Amino acid sequence: MSDINKQLDILASRTVDLYSRDELKKKLELADRENRPLRVKLGADPSAPDLHLGHCVVINKLQEFQALGHQVVFIIGDFTGMIGDPSGKSATRPSLSREAVEANAQTYKEQIFKILDPEKTEIRFNSEWFGDMRFDQVIRLSAHVTVAQMLARDDFSKRYAENRPISLVEFLYPLVQAYDSVMVKADVELGGTDQLFNLLLGREIQQAHGMAPQIVMTFPLIEGLDGVQKMSKSLGNYIGINEPPREIFGKTMSVSDELMWRYFTYILCVPETEVAAMRQEVDSGRRHPRDMKDELARRIVARFHDEAAAMQASEEFARVFSQNKLPDDMPEILLRATDAPEGVMGIIDLVMCGDLCASRGEARRLIQQGGLRIDDVKVSDPMVSVPLKDGMIIKAGKRRFAKVVLSE
Amino acid sequence: MSDINKQLDILASRTVDLYSRDELKKKLELADRENRPLRVKLGADPSAPDLHLGHCVVINKLQEFQALGHQVVFIIGDFTGMIGDPSGKSATRPSLSREAVEANAQTYKEQIFKILDPEKTEIRFNSEWFGDMRFDQVIRLSAHVTVAQMLARDDFSKRYAENRPISLVEFLYPLVQAYDSVMVKADVELGGTDQLFNLLLGREIQQAHGMAPQIVMTFPLIEGLDGVQKMSKSLGNYIGINEPPREIFGKTMSVSDELMWRYFTYILCVPETEVAAMRQEVDSGRRHPRDMKDELARRIVARFHDEAAAMQASEEFARVFSQNKLPDDMPEILLRATDAPEGVMGIIDLVMCGDLCASRGEARRLIQQGGLRIDDVKVSDPMVSVPLKDGMIIKAGKRRFAKVVLSE
Repeated sequence: MSDINKQLDILASRTVDLYSRDELKKKLELADRENRPLRVKLGADPSAPDLHLGHCVVINKLQEFQALGHQVVFIIGDFTGMIGDPSGKSATRPSLSREAVEANAQTYKEQIFKILDPEKTEIRFNSEWFGDMRFDQVIRLSAHVTVAQMLARDDFSKRYAENRPISLVEFLYPLVQAYDSVMVKADVELGGTDQLFNLLLGREIQQAHGMAPQIVMTFPLIEGLDGVQKMSKSLGNYIGINEPPREIFGKTMSVSDELMWRYFTYILCVPETEVAAMRQEVDSGRRHPRDMKDELARRIVARFHDEAAAMQASEEFARVFSQNKLPDDMPEILLRATDAPEGVMGIIDLVMCGDLCASRGEARRLIQQGGLRIDDVKVSDPMVSVPLKDGMIIKAGKRRFAKVVLSE
Repeated sequence: MSDINKQLDILASRTVDLYSRDELKKKLELADRENRPLRVKLGADPSAPDLHLGHCVVINKLQEFQALGHQVVFIIGDFTGMIGDPSGKSATRPSLSREAVEANAQTYKEQIFKILDPEKTEIRFNSEWFGDMRFDQVIRLSAHVTVAQMLARDDFSKRYAENRPISLVEFLYPLVQAYDSVMVKADVELGGTDQLFNLLLGREIQQAHGMAPQIVMTFPLIEGLDGVQKMSKSLGNYIGINEPPREIFGKTMSVSDELMWRYFTYILCVPETEVAAMRQEVDSGRRHPRDMKDELARRIVARFHDEAAAMQASEEFARVFSQNKLPDDMPEILLRATDAPEGVMGIIDLVMCGDLCASRGEARRLIQQGGLRIDDVKVSDPMVSVPLKDGMIIKAGKRRFAKVVLSE
């Protein structure tokens, strides 16, 4: 019994919502008596296969369940993924081909198995049960919810109040997710705080199908590099778990001191008491925040690569940024005589050739703001043409470099 | 072209909503050029197979379309009929077996073919296209409507405002009806005024499927015998088209003078100008309203039976009610000695034996109100016991009679 209480403390940690600790305890006891693992569900949208640290907040909890012997059920929502948003109102729901879904699923697997144990992970596609579902079954499923209940969901009530359209399809999609819980017999479902409504609906739909309701756990949507908005690929403020060590390290070093503590907690799962102690070290001046952030960045790189890569990234970062030296290797801008017949090139063209900015507009703003240097000399006129030299170093912003290589 | 305008005048008559006269004209012109009939749809709920005069308001218009050469498509909503209301919230949606649906469909046919031409009537069951429809198609269909659009429907907005539950299923059912229009390629759909939303949704869903939108026509929900509430079986204020001549005649004679004009217009399709002239005759005192109502009742009986039956019903009615004589034949109350060993019977028991009242409570009220006569003598004490005589006449209310027949 003390073992159950210990499990409970581990599993309840870092949750925002938990429905409920008591129920979870009973489920753990029942699973223990029946000598079976709990089935812990996480649903994934197959349209965005690049996992980043934001996803890790939830996946870390799955790992903790696995470490305690439980079974993860990872559901790839290919049924709705292949339909997309037929109303055409949501840009975030492209419709995917079967091939794209499968390719994305493969990418998912490669990424989640950096964290999760494949032996204790069941991967399911929900087209398995929805592919053949007929209209009359949809009607019976829809009978379990009311319009008012759906409109109570935060984002729906807001859009309805603002007269922004909500397609009827959007009322069906939460039912899809909820019915997944019936089909995989989920004991627990995890999600971000924005998933609370859908996860609770899973409880109701399970009960309507004569099942015990799943435990619902939500986790914070961790802020991205800007420290304000939630980490997301579309906002560009993310750290991908597949990025090279140097990128993960450099991006981590750019987060605010305040956000650093949340990353220790939610990305590295450092217990609250330890984080408080580390914070005390910094607050008291015994340890420099940059040093603490270096530890955070090293530990994150080590998690997704290895210790050696972490050390190397840390050393290189120190050399380049603290001592203002150049990185060990850097991308090259290979230019031929035909690219610049007169031996000169517009500064924006040069930046774009080196892939140093995402757009000409961004390049122009960077130059105007004084963020561009050529051989350590600031260039602040975006209209200037630059005489090309072999080995010339372009530095864009704090961390992006490229070296010009001229060839015949 | 004058022919088209003439058709248009006929078809537009008696409509409450018409979307739109111009469009209908273009459809008629196109059908004329392509030498094909318009397809005119009416949907029917398979749970209530007894047609009454309320239904005739719309069916009359179908008949006019047929008389002009057009094709009626009568859809029996067996798909939803067999599902019923899975939320269990609506008592008006029992779930029907396949056998019940087919029996009801047969009854429908027998009744509508009293009015419609079977040669120009296509009968379809919507399970034909919905039986195999899969979830992904439902999602694509749902994408064409928004939640706000559905909530704008009168009854939904009212229930939502009053916090009365609306099952999500109820948002799917209008789509079912609308998609029927796509599947049968309806050029026109008819319905009561309460169907306006659903019929207009049919236009949208047809357009979303690349079709020209159907013309929408609505008709009044005609008042029943009470003159206040719409005629309906559940309210008991109806005249069924399958009722015997005497019943149809007597019930028609019981409507108010005011409602009589509406029956001339909507049940008998007498043109407005003629109705106005008839009204003038009555208002000026040249014709007695009872005489006018007799004409109405005769014409209605003649329509669903024949002229002879109409005349007979009229004559009998006149004899019984105007001249206070007994009807030609009347139901008998067959009583044996064992039914009343002492030769007497409680007055309420006697009324119930003769099936003259629906319940003992109704019998008691009728007696207390002085509405019961035995051999033309009023009996106003509901507790009295009556000595039984062979040939004794019981009269309950104005029109119900029975004759006691004693046997050994």
